[in-house]
Amino acid sequence: MSVRSDTIEISTLGDTDIHDITDLVARAISKSGIKAGTVTVFCPSSTSALTTIEYEIGAVNDLKRLFEEIVPQNREYAHNARWQDGNGHSHVRGSLLGPSLTIPFMNGELTLGTWQQIIHIDFDNKPRKRELILQIVGE
Amino acid sequence: MSVRSDTIEISTLGDTDIHDITDLVARAISKSGIKAGTVTVFCPSSTSALTTIEYEIGAVNDLKRLFEEIVPQNREYAHNARWQDGNGHSHVRGSLLGPSLTIPFMNGELTLGTWQQIIHIDFDNKPRKRELILQIVGE
Amino acid sequence: MSVRSDTIEISTLGDTDIHDITDLVARAISKSGIKAGTVTVFCPSSTSALTTIEYEIGAVNDLKRLFEEIVPQNREYAHNARWQDGNGHSHVRGSLLGPSLTIPFMNGELTLGTWQQIIHIDFDNKPRKRELILQIVGE
Repeated sequence: MSVRSDTIEISTLGDTDIHDITDLVARAISKSGIKAGTVTVFCPSSTSALTTIEYEIGAVNDLKRLFEEIVPQNREYAHNARWQDGNGHSHVRGSLLGPSLTIPFMNGELTLGTWQQIIHIDFDNKPRKRELILQIVGE
Repeated sequence: MSVRSDTIEISTLGDTDIHDITDLVARAISKSGIKAGTVTVFCPSSTSALTTIEYEIGAVNDLKRLFEEIVPQNREYAHNARWQDGNGHSHVRGSLLGPSLTIPFMNGELTLGTWQQIIHIDFDNKPRKRELILQIVGE
Repeated sequence: MSVRSDTIEISTLGDTDIHDITDLVARAISKSGIKAGTVTVFCPSSTSALTTIEYEIGAVNDLKRLFEEIVPQNREYAHNARWQDGNGHSHVRGSLLGPSLTIPFMNGELTLGTWQQIIHIDFDNKPRKRELILQIVGE
């Protein structure tokens, strides 16, 4: 049993920009040499989040619409009133979806479904460079 | 320290069918022989998800209503327009709730609360056979 | 590699009371002597949940407003009709946000962002004493 830490970097456009990071996570597992265990992918950020989806433009846009409907960008936020940075909606969306995703792997491969990809969503209101943390635990 | 992989199978009715899988997870931990650690339960699917609830028909129906209210089935979805499979809402609901749940166990027992059960929700729009992945890490 | 279990206790006011538990989690990691791995924080409860946020009163209040908007307290719940305890909304909110959060740590320190704190949200409709489970896995 051992722990291997890694990071992956992505450049985003902000505004609920969604990236498929499956290959980056799979490559880190392969590089770690660990064959069976779990990988925890973590956003060290309060305005981005992780989940999985069938990564095709239809489902991706449907998910974006949900966030705009239940946490719309253009309304008053107490965060914006205090800090004037206009990303109050980004914080609420990030907290709702959550910064952490733990996925099993076996024989060196993620146990994702055939039409299931890992996505990073950047809810911030401007382009960002993001460094995600991967913690791989296994044997 | 070791890793034990297992699977559990359930048959669902689809349409936000909710199953209590607590006993199946507890049995897998018992079978693994591992006494303390974490179990990651994972849906290899983009139209189902996991969480916990007090598993009684009232709370279960209240949770179903939430998904119908914030991600209604009968409206336009970009996913449906592209693929004509009518499960656009299932994808959005699955992504929002998330496919992964990690739960500690000690002395061979899950650390769930007295009125807290692990549930699988099948958001797809038809009956499905589902195989969930369990990754048990501990000593 | 080893597993260390710990608990943290908090007293809450209920009604979506939000506490920053970052320091309590950091202290438990330090006490464990484990330098690199993951900590799973878990609510053994179906009416409370965990996530991260920039812990400032604006963002915290914006998040509270979201839950009141999508899962309002004052409406009919099937749970309340059956049990007359008035916390139907608490159950739905807890299930939506989820009871578990797994966070990496390296060199004995959580890999949180600079403006990212771990929060516990008590959705129950009365003050509660809560004991959270920490499962620390690493080396």
